[in-house]
Amino acid sequence: MTNRPKVFLPDDRYFDPNPRQKEIAQHLYAMVADLPLVCPHGHVDPRTFADPDYSFGTPVDLLIIPDHYVFRMLYSQGIPLEQLSIPRLDGGPVEEDHRKIWQIFADNFYLFRGTPTGMWLTHELQSVFGVEDKLTGESAQDIYDQIAGRLASSEFRPRRLFERFNIEALCTTDVATDPLDHHRAIRESGWPGRVLPTFRPDAVVNVDTPGWRANVEALSEVTGIEVNSYRAFIQAIENRRAYFKEMGAVATDHAALTAYTGELSDREAEAIFQRALKGQATAEDATRFTGHMLMENARMSIEDGLVMQFHPGSYRNHNRFIFDRFGPDMGCDIPIQAEFTRNLRPLLNKYGNDGRFTLILFTVDETTYSRELAPLAGHYPAVRLGPPWWFFDSLNGMTRYFEQITETAGLYNTAGFNDDTRAFPSIPARHDLWRRASANWIAGLVVRGIVDMNDAEEMIHDAAYRLAKRAYKLEEGEG
Amino acid sequence: MTNRPKVFLPDDRYFDPNPRQKEIAQHLYAMVADLPLVCPHGHVDPRTFADPDYSFGTPVDLLIIPDHYVFRMLYSQGIPLEQLSIPRLDGGPVEEDHRKIWQIFADNFYLFRGTPTGMWLTHELQSVFGVEDKLTGESAQDIYDQIAGRLASSEFRPRRLFERFNIEALCTTDVATDPLDHHRAIRESGWPGRVLPTFRPDAVVNVDTPGWRANVEALSEVTGIEVNSYRAFIQAIENRRAYFKEMGAVATDHAALTAYTGELSDREAEAIFQRALKGQATAEDATRFTGHMLMENARMSIEDGLVMQFHPGSYRNHNRFIFDRFGPDMGCDIPIQAEFTRNLRPLLNKYGNDGRFTLILFTVDETTYSRELAPLAGHYPAVRLGPPWWFFDSLNGMTRYFEQITETAGLYNTAGFNDDTRAFPSIPARHDLWRRASANWIAGLVVRGIVDMNDAEEMIHDAAYRLAKRAYKLEEGEG
Amino acid sequence: MTNRPKVFLPDDRYFDPNPRQKEIAQHLYAMVADLPLVCPHGHVDPRTFADPDYSFGTPVDLLIIPDHYVFRMLYSQGIPLEQLSIPRLDGGPVEEDHRKIWQIFADNFYLFRGTPTGMWLTHELQSVFGVEDKLTGESAQDIYDQIAGRLASSEFRPRRLFERFNIEALCTTDVATDPLDHHRAIRESGWPGRVLPTFRPDAVVNVDTPGWRANVEALSEVTGIEVNSYRAFIQAIENRRAYFKEMGAVATDHAALTAYTGELSDREAEAIFQRALKGQATAEDATRFTGHMLMENARMSIEDGLVMQFHPGSYRNHNRFIFDRFGPDMGCDIPIQAEFTRNLRPLLNKYGNDGRFTLILFTVDETTYSRELAPLAGHYPAVRLGPPWWFFDSLNGMTRYFEQITETAGLYNTAGFNDDTRAFPSIPARHDLWRRASANWIAGLVVRGIVDMNDAEEMIHDAAYRLAKRAYKLEEGEG
Repeated sequence: MTNRPKVFLPDDRYFDPNPRQKEIAQHLYAMVADLPLVCPHGHVDPRTFADPDYSFGTPVDLLIIPDHYVFRMLYSQGIPLEQLSIPRLDGGPVEEDHRKIWQIFADNFYLFRGTPTGMWLTHELQSVFGVEDKLTGESAQDIYDQIAGRLASSEFRPRRLFERFNIEALCTTDVATDPLDHHRAIRESGWPGRVLPTFRPDAVVNVDTPGWRANVEALSEVTGIEVNSYRAFIQAIENRRAYFKEMGAVATDHAALTAYTGELSDREAEAIFQRALKGQATAEDATRFTGHMLMENARMSIEDGLVMQFHPGSYRNHNRFIFDRFGPDMGCDIPIQAEFTRNLRPLLNKYGNDGRFTLILFTVDETTYSRELAPLAGHYPAVRLGPPWWFFDSLNGMTRYFEQITETAGLYNTAGFNDDTRAFPSIPARHDLWRRASANWIAGLVVRGIVDMNDAEEMIHDAAYRLAKRAYKLEEGEG
Repeated sequence: MTNRPKVFLPDDRYFDPNPRQKEIAQHLYAMVADLPLVCPHGHVDPRTFADPDYSFGTPVDLLIIPDHYVFRMLYSQGIPLEQLSIPRLDGGPVEEDHRKIWQIFADNFYLFRGTPTGMWLTHELQSVFGVEDKLTGESAQDIYDQIAGRLASSEFRPRRLFERFNIEALCTTDVATDPLDHHRAIRESGWPGRVLPTFRPDAVVNVDTPGWRANVEALSEVTGIEVNSYRAFIQAIENRRAYFKEMGAVATDHAALTAYTGELSDREAEAIFQRALKGQATAEDATRFTGHMLMENARMSIEDGLVMQFHPGSYRNHNRFIFDRFGPDMGCDIPIQAEFTRNLRPLLNKYGNDGRFTLILFTVDETTYSRELAPLAGHYPAVRLGPPWWFFDSLNGMTRYFEQITETAGLYNTAGFNDDTRAFPSIPARHDLWRRASANWIAGLVVRGIVDMNDAEEMIHDAAYRLAKRAYKLEEGEG
Repeated sequence: MTNRPKVFLPDDRYFDPNPRQKEIAQHLYAMVADLPLVCPHGHVDPRTFADPDYSFGTPVDLLIIPDHYVFRMLYSQGIPLEQLSIPRLDGGPVEEDHRKIWQIFADNFYLFRGTPTGMWLTHELQSVFGVEDKLTGESAQDIYDQIAGRLASSEFRPRRLFERFNIEALCTTDVATDPLDHHRAIRESGWPGRVLPTFRPDAVVNVDTPGWRANVEALSEVTGIEVNSYRAFIQAIENRRAYFKEMGAVATDHAALTAYTGELSDREAEAIFQRALKGQATAEDATRFTGHMLMENARMSIEDGLVMQFHPGSYRNHNRFIFDRFGPDMGCDIPIQAEFTRNLRPLLNKYGNDGRFTLILFTVDETTYSRELAPLAGHYPAVRLGPPWWFFDSLNGMTRYFEQITETAGLYNTAGFNDDTRAFPSIPARHDLWRRASANWIAGLVVRGIVDMNDAEEMIHDAAYRLAKRAYKLEEGEG
């Protein structure tokens, strides 16, 4: 076993090979490597922290089954999801031998060469679980044993890891009708970890959501408002926003296929809402209502101070076979071309000049970085740009983001980093990658004579820590 | 004051940190650093040179109020334009204390870290005004004094700076109805500076321009042709082109929301023109008429030899609040997706094979570089590509331009550099950035074994000086 | 003559100047530099190999007249195609003095500085023809003599070069109605070179192809099936696929203006087919029929195992003047924006999960790399991504491809390299460029601590050789 290849994770990883740039990057990185992690947007299940004895299960339960970044790659090479124990909607049989699944994963880990998933996993195995061997078919079972052993120890309860990871705040993403019981349990437990909900109303505002009618009924129930009119619907939304805010939320989050915004008259809104209640809303109704509700939520944000996040442009559940068999979030959401300049004009014309409003924009169409997003953020007081999203939460993705956004928008119209993950133990690896990529980009500015060391040191603190806190108003909740 | 941070402007700035590439880049840059500046496209006010005693006013009058690159960034962080003395259309109150404005600017100068505006200003303050301290809140007032002192001296009259900057030719941009009195005054003054007008007919050919009717009346007046028909309109345009050419113009310039071109029959053109005169032109009329007039101007270019520039793709005055309060050119023009392949086909099919015709294309949608513009320029004899425009007149913008355009179009289907600025004292800084970026790109080709030093030395002369002169036919006007 | 500049072709060309990255890149490149060339997609005329005594003609016959990459650049600078001996459709006069044409080419060879065409030609002249002088106006005639001398020798018969180039397999592209006589002659000659046909049915499935009716008649003739109905048409297509497969084909190839796919009912398909036979098909008919036939060919691929290639997005024959005078493939095909996410959904939903199906996608719209193609390939088992196509078969094109695709799709959802050329003697230069670019990219991953040397060595073998063989199932045909 001593001859087995070791994990490759050099201390100077991700930095440019130029010695001067690397030296400066390492200097900058060292300044922020141990700063607390600010996690203002993500998908960790709050249940994880509600129960002090929560266990992550097996290595496969933790690292493969919930992570569509991992299993989509295996699927792309012909490995059926059933063989990876992804639960079928019909309850049909799936592989239950987690050691066998782990072996498949390790045998195919070469597929992740050069991918962010590969980088995160390598870092995570080494720094969270203390694995020293490279993950290969040969080392697979020993590594499984190592991880399983750690997971069994009390040091690997989620709250302990939260503390060990030095997380300052972690925002989850929660549907509008969520009673936030887990968040309440966390609060009431006396554990000081700052886990905050985020208000995500897509399932009630997008009238073409499967099950929308049931979601509206749940909204009635949870608010005690009979949501049988557009007017009542707005009241119910405002009611839930207030509740989320009371429970610590600092932000809302919105998804849509496109960035279309546009205001309806009350009468139009009511008419669409009534058609939707009767199951008669058209596709155009849905688009217009979503565009209108984005504007309404912007208005509410000005009133209640919640930061508005917008994640348009992903064509969800592209693969119907997979969706029908396994449900959503199975690695088959595919980006489409995005358009912000015309689509956001109604919203920005009405609310974009208001200093009380913060709108954080995300994209999975990188062509919009330099063409639309940076010019918008470099002008409108309300606009900030979220970090590279999804497929672009990667070393090259970050490099392109910095190079294409900051010349026009500056660093100071960005919202720092968020990890956007449901894979809790990958959080430190993701922030580490961002901090290294940021340090490397800034070091590149220094060696090219663009910013001096003093500015560079300010910038790395901003990129690694301060900008995210500021954009999400997480400072305000302090002391 | 001796401990104040100094301005950071190393001699080897903007070059790759690799020692061999940097050495070659410095060698190439040194060959062209002192060549005269050719400025074939820009927005400097000709009035500046018409009066030999013209004064630039205060540092704020010169560097902030007229420069939307500067104040849009401050605005994006919530600083109202009124606080920066941007004049309101309604004549309402704005800040009048220029020292106070300068302080706001200096306090927020960190926003420009890594931006081209920051790079230009830093260079300009040091090399034009001799400022040695870094611009910060602390140094602000001293630097204000220094600049103000310089501006008061006779050495800082525009004509003196023009000579000191070693400008070989400077083309302004002038509406079709401009009598060119300032250009005439410059000519008649005996001062040898070559300041040339450029014919920009947007305000008369785009029938949806606010105030179009009045512009057409002005056209009648200035030409003595009663412009009451499409036929008379064409005569008037030809008349003005002839006048501009007589006054030294070498080029025309055209803007439009899209690159649409298409020919109308005389009858269709007349019908739209008549509807426009009656204020009844539709949006589609406007689009079609603009597309037709692009073709007509191409025809005229073949006849009179004026080079045709085309700048499509900017959504002007995106922010209605700002437009209503302050007018156009306030930093809220936002790019949209561009399309050239289909849109330019009518024009290129009719005129693109004609060796007498030069069409210089610009874009604010970088995705068109490799996909459309380079293939078009690499085929049609008439097409040349203008340098990176607007937001992309930047270090990264230039790098992307070279990398995405030259493999397909070659360097020799480009039109060199133009500074496109109304900020006269920033001109040397802008050309310097281009010359450095060009030298660095070419040095990158040398160290990668792609071109030899001999070719590299030719290329840097072409990029820095010759291509612009050739594309705009500025050689022809010489001795 | 001894003072003439020598050809510039350093051994370490195309590698990053960083010494460590370069050293690793050279190590990786050396491992694969001499591996056999796998050429699964290209346009070499099979006639070249059918006659053992085939001669390439003059240097101009070989290097200029058939290569639109070369003459489009000369045309873009105003050199008429007639002066380059490009044959006119009307048989009108063109330059016949090949030495004069070669002189024009050499005089203008500076236009190719920094272009892939320049890099290939430089490599080809030196390594295939032994030219030591740099190609300039001065050296032009001597170099012409050298090349002409080589071409006269028996060592420069195509079959000898095929062997010298170490080509393992070369796939041509052949219309559906091609009797494959040259392929048959090659097979029957006993010469062991593996030259395989590829089934390209565009001219019979795209009903808007000029001459479609005649193509369908040719299809009837070659299959013996009277193609007077959609049903018979499908039978004829299947018949030809079977014949191509029997003749060694491993793949089909499909082009279309867009990536639109969608299934028609038999009745709709029949109706469109009948309209097309009568010359009454509309533009929409053509689009829908093409989209349907893509799906039909996918179905057939699952049945017969032929790999499906798809090359959408090129606007063919953009310049009508050139098309009318010289015909197609004259360097005036211009890319348009591509869209895969929605367009391919019908095809991928029906066939994309089938492990027997391989669909290799190509694009001339690089914006689709990270936004659409990598996410699709990183999910669907059937999808593989072809190498950078056409204008992007270049050093920067490859770099962008690796950087934008592999983080999401991984290296293992790509299909390696193909040279896609009709310029047979440029094949080694093209593979060499790919191998160097791949080695440099992988070395960049090593010096950034992303992959270890062991992985790097596997990756370079995959990129340079194995992936292409695997994607095109060229292994299966072996021993």
